[in-house]
Amino acid sequence: MNHAGSRGTAGTTIMRWADELAGHSEAEGMLTRTYLTAAHSGAAEQLSQWMRDAGMNVRRDAAGNVIGRYEGSAPGAPALLTGSHFDTVRDAGKYDGNLGILLPIACIAEWNRTGRRFPFAIEVIGFAEEEGVRFKATLLGSRAIAGSFDYGVLDKRDSNDQTMRQVMHAAGFNPDNLPHAAYRRDNVLGFMEVHIEQGPVLLDENLPVGVVTAISGASRFLVQATGLAGHAGTVPMSLRRDAAMTAAEIGLYIEKRCSGIPGLVGTVGQLEVPNGAANVVPGKAVFTIDIRAETDAVREAAVSDVINEMQAIGARRKVSLDINRTHEAKSVPCAGWLQEQLGAVISQAGLPVRHLPSGAGHDAMAIAALTDVAMLFVRCGNGGISHHPDETMTAEDADIAARVFSGFVENFRPR
Amino acid sequence: MNHAGSRGTAGTTIMRWADELAGHSEAEGMLTRTYLTAAHSGAAEQLSQWMRDAGMNVRRDAAGNVIGRYEGSAPGAPALLTGSHFDTVRDAGKYDGNLGILLPIACIAEWNRTGRRFPFAIEVIGFAEEEGVRFKATLLGSRAIAGSFDYGVLDKRDSNDQTMRQVMHAAGFNPDNLPHAAYRRDNVLGFMEVHIEQGPVLLDENLPVGVVTAISGASRFLVQATGLAGHAGTVPMSLRRDAAMTAAEIGLYIEKRCSGIPGLVGTVGQLEVPNGAANVVPGKAVFTIDIRAETDAVREAAVSDVINEMQAIGARRKVSLDINRTHEAKSVPCAGWLQEQLGAVISQAGLPVRHLPSGAGHDAMAIAALTDVAMLFVRCGNGGISHHPDETMTAEDADIAARVFSGFVENFRPR
Repeated sequence: MNHAGSRGTAGTTIMRWADELAGHSEAEGMLTRTYLTAAHSGAAEQLSQWMRDAGMNVRRDAAGNVIGRYEGSAPGAPALLTGSHFDTVRDAGKYDGNLGILLPIACIAEWNRTGRRFPFAIEVIGFAEEEGVRFKATLLGSRAIAGSFDYGVLDKRDSNDQTMRQVMHAAGFNPDNLPHAAYRRDNVLGFMEVHIEQGPVLLDENLPVGVVTAISGASRFLVQATGLAGHAGTVPMSLRRDAAMTAAEIGLYIEKRCSGIPGLVGTVGQLEVPNGAANVVPGKAVFTIDIRAETDAVREAAVSDVINEMQAIGARRKVSLDINRTHEAKSVPCAGWLQEQLGAVISQAGLPVRHLPSGAGHDAMAIAALTDVAMLFVRCGNGGISHHPDETMTAEDADIAARVFSGFVENFRPR
Repeated sequence: MNHAGSRGTAGTTIMRWADELAGHSEAEGMLTRTYLTAAHSGAAEQLSQWMRDAGMNVRRDAAGNVIGRYEGSAPGAPALLTGSHFDTVRDAGKYDGNLGILLPIACIAEWNRTGRRFPFAIEVIGFAEEEGVRFKATLLGSRAIAGSFDYGVLDKRDSNDQTMRQVMHAAGFNPDNLPHAAYRRDNVLGFMEVHIEQGPVLLDENLPVGVVTAISGASRFLVQATGLAGHAGTVPMSLRRDAAMTAAEIGLYIEKRCSGIPGLVGTVGQLEVPNGAANVVPGKAVFTIDIRAETDAVREAAVSDVINEMQAIGARRKVSLDINRTHEAKSVPCAGWLQEQLGAVISQAGLPVRHLPSGAGHDAMAIAALTDVAMLFVRCGNGGISHHPDETMTAEDADIAARVFSGFVENFRPR
């Protein structure tokens, strides 16, 4: 461990930097920083400065990623990658994404101060885009680096009707050079992303950090239920074909089916009776289903049961169901050998090693196409709220996470 | 029975008149006839004409009601009242309300043709307003006659910002004379309203007519459930405070609690997750509850159970519930002695006597303050759809209902 003699220093630095970085916003009175806006450029410049101050060589690639390289004992060695995104959602929290850039910079600054080098290089990547706010396309930065960038999205338009291609050119990035942003596998040893949990699990169990097992796969559906509208006073219960109660019964089945199985969650996030009236039995209901699990087998079994049960409920209630699959993503496992090394450091720090899946998507998901990935989750305060200005974490937890990250790097054994 | 020798005649007349009356509409291509519009005045004039042709003296009262009186054997005798409303909802069906005016006129026309008189007068009232569309105040016509008119509503404004008072004066009706529209109890023997069922019960049981036991009382609530929004991927099922699933569980409880008890119905007609997103656990849900029953005791017991269960569900799910009672109306029973006389005629016609409550409100509800009331329901086609252009009924059923009405009058014994 590195910070034994200056306990708290890395944590308070990270928190101060997060506050400072949050000043780079395109919206007054809140944090909103979308791809290649002036605020985004300002944040990139600030990150570059902190990276340089920490002894890194800094470059920007064609996607706008900010990449700081801390050379190893010998120049040109393969690199351990780390980092996260510095774009944000609208009215965001300060730590989502940003933490995973600032924390490694703080750790490297300390090694640089004491002149410590490793047999490998460390590259800290500030991914330029992950959230998908401006162009409704996500993970732009990490996909460019993983070599899986979808060139079709360059024609997508923002709310000002500008294509991504136009916006990139205007900001000084040439989309024709995007292929050169992709890393070569043999230059890379692995990827470790530090991220705020964005959920309540660590908070609930009073733990500062956790080891991510996988980024959960997800299946999403949009369902329209069509029964028969009727007068709420004159249609007896036995003759109803109530679309809302059909949706209610399906929702509760999903809730029950997904409960009690670790890593599995199911949600009806949208639910509406279009043009509903208090005195009308609902003839229509529209709702979404979102099912995620740590492993694809668990998710697929749940999805299959939910679809079967939906059909049974619809048939019994004489309500027809139009079920559309709107999204499907496989689980992305974190590499076992990286999880082990991370767990060992946490254990050495005297903390329980809590393994948990990530229900939200992260840059590591894209980078997994390039190299083995791992993620360190840091406790999220305030009930686990994220993507919201109420997102919080503590300097103490930032410090513990920095020590774990440092220990991980100091003890890192490439596979 | 009167029409034995001319089977179908009254039925086809009624259906033809209903078609003709539907031509008096304020909207192109659909039937919409609200209080004291030109279309409303045209319909009143047409009804008056048919009443006069059937041998009645016709007058309009201060509320705009069209009243036709068919004198008894001796002039000035107390009257058996019948009738229904000739205003409509927007984009209405042709039979709701109108049937209950046209059918008695057709029956009286036949008695008039053969010179038949009874020991009592018959008054057919075309109530000028029941639906409450123009001024958001219902039962204006029947309340004027029952002496329960709420004079406060005269200051209500329509969508053209005209007060009801102004509209009445413009149409030639003096609201100052409304008190004179009220009937004296000792001039009245009872009230019988013929109405399309507006529900599927008779259709489902293959019966042309039914005897209404009561106009159901109703309790209505608007409920806001507040839990905690969260990420659909990162918040484990056990840590959720899902407002939508709380609403779903309450809805299914209401459905179950109100099932299997004759005359009791419970409906969640509006249900919404405000600003819901597929990937967000709902922190808010808003829904309505409508509970109606033939008897107040049954309704009140159901309401009490529903409120208790809501609170238990909310407490268990850590979701707070803001429960607002928005409407409360007691049940209005139909008089037993009138139900008996009506049932006897149906039985003599060789038909089963089906008793059923009316889950919808009707003019009889207001007239019950003046005199004993009864209602004859006529089968509604098309799954029981009403308040909609798809509302249908058959000439055969109209004819059966006319024969039942005629038999009722011919055998009427005042209490």
